Amino acid sequence: MGIDLHFTKGHGTGNDFVLFADPDGRLDLTPEQIQGICDRQFGVGADGIIRAVRSANLDAGAAALAEDDGAEWFMDYWNADGTVSEMCGNGIRVYTRFLLEQGLVDLGPGDTLAIGTRSGVRDVQQNATGFQVDLGRWRLEPGETLVRAKNLAVARPGLGINVGNPHVVVALADENELESADLTFIPQLDPEPAEGANVEFVLPHDPLVVDGVGRIRMRVHERGSGETLSCGTGAVAAALATRHWAGQGAPNQWRVEVPGGVLGVRMFPTEDGEHVSLSGPATLVFDGTLALA
Amino acid sequence: MGIDLHFTKGHGTGNDFVLFADPDGRLDLTPEQIQGICDRQFGVGADGIIRAVRSANLDAGAAALAEDDGAEWFMDYWNADGTVSEMCGNGIRVYTRFLLEQGLVDLGPGDTLAIGTRSGVRDVQQNATGFQVDLGRWRLEPGETLVRAKNLAVARPGLGINVGNPHVVVALADENELESADLTFIPQLDPEPAEGANVEFVLPHDPLVVDGVGRIRMRVHERGSGETLSCGTGAVAAALATRHWAGQGAPNQWRVEVPGGVLGVRMFPTEDGEHVSLSGPATLVFDGTLALA
Repeated sequence: MGIDLHFTKGHGTGNDFVLFADPDGRLDLTPEQIQGICDRQFGVGADGIIRAVRSANLDAGAAALAEDDGAEWFMDYWNADGTVSEMCGNGIRVYTRFLLEQGLVDLGPGDTLAIGTRSGVRDVQQNATGFQVDLGRWRLEPGETLVRAKNLAVARPGLGINVGNPHVVVALADENELESADLTFIPQLDPEPAEGANVEFVLPHDPLVVDGVGRIRMRVHERGSGETLSCGTGAVAAALATRHWAGQGAPNQWRVEVPGGVLGVRMFPTEDGEHVSLSGPATLVFDGTLALA
Repeated sequence: MGIDLHFTKGHGTGNDFVLFADPDGRLDLTPEQIQGICDRQFGVGADGIIRAVRSANLDAGAAALAEDDGAEWFMDYWNADGTVSEMCGNGIRVYTRFLLEQGLVDLGPGDTLAIGTRSGVRDVQQNATGFQVDLGRWRLEPGETLVRAKNLAVARPGLGINVGNPHVVVALADENELESADLTFIPQLDPEPAEGANVEFVLPHDPLVVDGVGRIRMRVHERGSGETLSCGTGAVAAALATRHWAGQGAPNQWRVEVPGGVLGVRMFPTEDGEHVSLSGPATLVFDGTLALA
């Protein structure tokens, strides 16, 4: 019979989520329930669902990952199609806002909150625009990928960047190209990466750097989702690629305009090698109650 | 400062609405608030918003329209873009379900509920699939309209039908045509009706009539909304057009498959001339609370 699901709907730069608290890990949704909830006409509508569960109450593998690093809370993330996702750069900010709003954690200025995810523990801090998340290390992929998109005249060289998930970044020449690219069609990659890739189309501002901050605009096509208003790791990949192209002296701080808002990207050295962080807003929109079928 | 809006989200064959009760007519939403609430990423997400208000508490013109005909409740409907709409064939069923669920009306089997709308009072009854709504009189438009749609080889003759709002209905030859028509582009009408029109693409089943019921499939492009999962008045127009083409002996009862489900259409004589009714399901999905900005 029907269990009532109490949830909150939120978004980070237009990437939107249904969040619910299940501290004891008692409520496992089926893929069919997730698809139903995420359906924008027949359900609540969202890009993904996030369950707030204590790491100690999760299945053994994930719990071990998270608890060892002092992450009391775990971000259990499902995509709209019902599959599990390891991390979501916009989702983790909205998740942090949700934990705070529910009174499940405290996070003062300067404090760091460790959050467990299926790709390891992530550190979150409050900042002026919302939250900043350390996404850890990244890597440049070897070789060049040719990218074709509908309404872009020729194939462009793309740079492969892995930020926990695979991206290919392409630079465009002008605003007209950025606006006319038709991303209702899947961009063609040559060679095609085995697991596919998100593709970012980037337009540098002129001048590129103002007050030490690099500035770009981008659109993104996400694997399995099509064009979206925002992709957190995509913004990070776009900033990393543009810094790479800009060469020596390029800044380590970036302002990335996505269709759904503005994100910040910062590269900084750690004992563990260079890390990259993503920052941006996180908004809770409404609370709801749904009878689970 | 923030007022909390308590709302219910519902849909009829995938045409979805945010509904709220405001019996005393105290809460007038601005177009900006409506656009914000209907936004699928940044708000709640819906095709439209329906306010349940007592006719007596509405502005003078609309109240006079409705109260004279014994309609205690008025369906105050806004489109997602913030404009007012006169009627919505799917919306009025979901509105009736909402009034019942909120305990604001009673409606036993065989009873008729009169609901005020900006295009006059509509009578609603419960039936096996949900609710049936008398949409009143309709008319065939004179002349022929040529319809062009992307991926359909040639221009087709369309039949203009007005069911309170204007429609142009086109018959297709086979399933391949129905599926390959690209309605992300606006169908071109020649001549172009002054106020535009919804365009229905209809495929008759073979055989057309089973057990006295005509059967068609359709897709619809709505003015200002693009392709939708369902359009109530569009289903009515499609059934009326197909009956017209089928000629003498064609049935007065129709089963219309839209992408979001199945609707029923019935034509019946009244003292006032022939009326047409629409029937179908109405589902409430969840309750929510939103702080109005």
